[in-house]
Amino acid sequence: MSTIDLIEAAAVRLHGHTRETPILTSPFLDELAGRRVLVKPECLQHTGSFKFRGAWSAISALDAEARKRGVIAYSSGNHAQGVAHAATLHSVQSVIIMPSDAPALKIKNTRALGAEVILYDRDNESREEIGEALSRERGLTLIRPYDEPQVIAGQGTVGLEVARQARDLGVTDADVLVCCGGGGLTSGVALALEKHAPGLRARPCEPEGFDDVKRSLASGSVQTNNAAAGNICDAILTPRPGGITFPILRRLCGPGLAVSEDEALHAMALAFLRLKVVLEPGGAVSLASALFRKDEIQGDAVIVVASGGNVDPQVFARALEFPT
Amino acid sequence: MSTIDLIEAAAVRLHGHTRETPILTSPFLDELAGRRVLVKPECLQHTGSFKFRGAWSAISALDAEARKRGVIAYSSGNHAQGVAHAATLHSVQSVIIMPSDAPALKIKNTRALGAEVILYDRDNESREEIGEALSRERGLTLIRPYDEPQVIAGQGTVGLEVARQARDLGVTDADVLVCCGGGGLTSGVALALEKHAPGLRARPCEPEGFDDVKRSLASGSVQTNNAAAGNICDAILTPRPGGITFPILRRLCGPGLAVSEDEALHAMALAFLRLKVVLEPGGAVSLASALFRKDEIQGDAVIVVASGGNVDPQVFARALEFPT
Repeated sequence: MSTIDLIEAAAVRLHGHTRETPILTSPFLDELAGRRVLVKPECLQHTGSFKFRGAWSAISALDAEARKRGVIAYSSGNHAQGVAHAATLHSVQSVIIMPSDAPALKIKNTRALGAEVILYDRDNESREEIGEALSRERGLTLIRPYDEPQVIAGQGTVGLEVARQARDLGVTDADVLVCCGGGGLTSGVALALEKHAPGLRARPCEPEGFDDVKRSLASGSVQTNNAAAGNICDAILTPRPGGITFPILRRLCGPGLAVSEDEALHAMALAFLRLKVVLEPGGAVSLASALFRKDEIQGDAVIVVASGGNVDPQVFARALEFPT
Repeated sequence: MSTIDLIEAAAVRLHGHTRETPILTSPFLDELAGRRVLVKPECLQHTGSFKFRGAWSAISALDAEARKRGVIAYSSGNHAQGVAHAATLHSVQSVIIMPSDAPALKIKNTRALGAEVILYDRDNESREEIGEALSRERGLTLIRPYDEPQVIAGQGTVGLEVARQARDLGVTDADVLVCCGGGGLTSGVALALEKHAPGLRARPCEPEGFDDVKRSLASGSVQTNNAAAGNICDAILTPRPGGITFPILRRLCGPGLAVSEDEALHAMALAFLRLKVVLEPGGAVSLASALFRKDEIQGDAVIVVASGGNVDPQVFARALEFPT
């Protein structure tokens, strides 16, 4: 059950612990997009992505016994860092299962944020089996990255902020573009907007070739991607929409949008130049959609949730070579 | 006359037009600095630097007659963009005198923000003479970059925000590190802190070799830099502290701090990695001071005003090569 009530309750628990990210704008982006562009940079959230919200929501909802036992998550990226940091701030032990070939910096960061990192061999071991064994042995609570009501509730607080910030800026009728992997952020935002800003419509944004949500929305049933990896937008490559998230997306979202790798990199360069924020490729597909799919968007203004900024310097340097 | 009254009046005029920039933090920066580090990223301000505040303050203080005639400024950088954008938003015409060898992108941006750009030959012409002639002919009001009470008042609103944000975070006793060129931002911040957060102490930060303010504070009288250019921190290379700003700095600031070009670039890399914001070298000397001059800083926390992010991709790519 994922509802607006869970989101509003999460907002109370998150208050003072997560950042209310601002809305950034630039007349140069407005001109490129052909309409006002309001960017909500969740890269400025703790641990560099919106994932910290869902992690805080899930851990703060645990009872005292579960907190004593600890939590576990599988992730090589933003969810890992969000869970590790939120757990440490709650004095809760966390175990993160990461592939042994994950970037050394991400493993180092996750450990530095207080997690016990357990590496597994992606080719010969199953992270689910390792995780389930550990969870049984130690009684750890599994925090799923998106198909988890309290995680969706935490991500939904982005939508509560968007609703209020858009109203303050006089925008009551617009598309809200959201970077979409499994759909935790998009479904949470869509639920929040349904009640608090019914003129705003969430629309999932994905990389071309990994547009399972776009195709699922178009067909009305869950579609799967052909490939599992091999795109620069690593943070949002999921095989199919979630079992909890998809019914919400189907009920509330407008059509999906998909952009190329080059368009994501180009949007990162423009965010660098015009907004002075660092986006990762998977966090920039929403801005890329606003700039390069403008004929598929309605209205005088568009709201862009830029979901994260955890990008290697080498990849960012590639983005900087795009013309601005 | 530059006083807290002017700053508080400017805050009313700026409200809703400038961004209240957030406070960003990272446990990784805390560890490097040996204390809590609270960063106020003014790179997220309109036009990418705090200069927009002073420009808005000065232009919004003009009477109707002066507004009809227009404004003029000399600058090749952040002040130019701040004045151009603030003037356009007031429907006031602006003329910006820029050197003909200024980066093409800055000239293009300043024009795109609505200014009439007049180029001069840095070697054979005097921008002051051109400016004075134009000012006489057209009755344009000159907006000086720092030695101007209404500009200092606008920059001082950064200090009002720092005072409130620090109090909300439980920090009442700390050094506040401020990137310092002519001293407009530093003196405005110092005046605001004097009344609203007397336990916070402004400290100017400069590039080594261009530490005129540090040496002036140490000696008690105005000192001049030997060189006028030739440092990557181009935004804050001024020959000497201002006639209006220096008495304020002398009365209210703690000792100055100075960092190398490499330390500024290294701080930019850490802001990229840990805060997800884009800083320019001159906007990063305060963060560099917090990280690399920690023995010269007092207290359990330090506040860093990171003043701007208008940096060329090539220079930013250099910063990304620093180890993080």
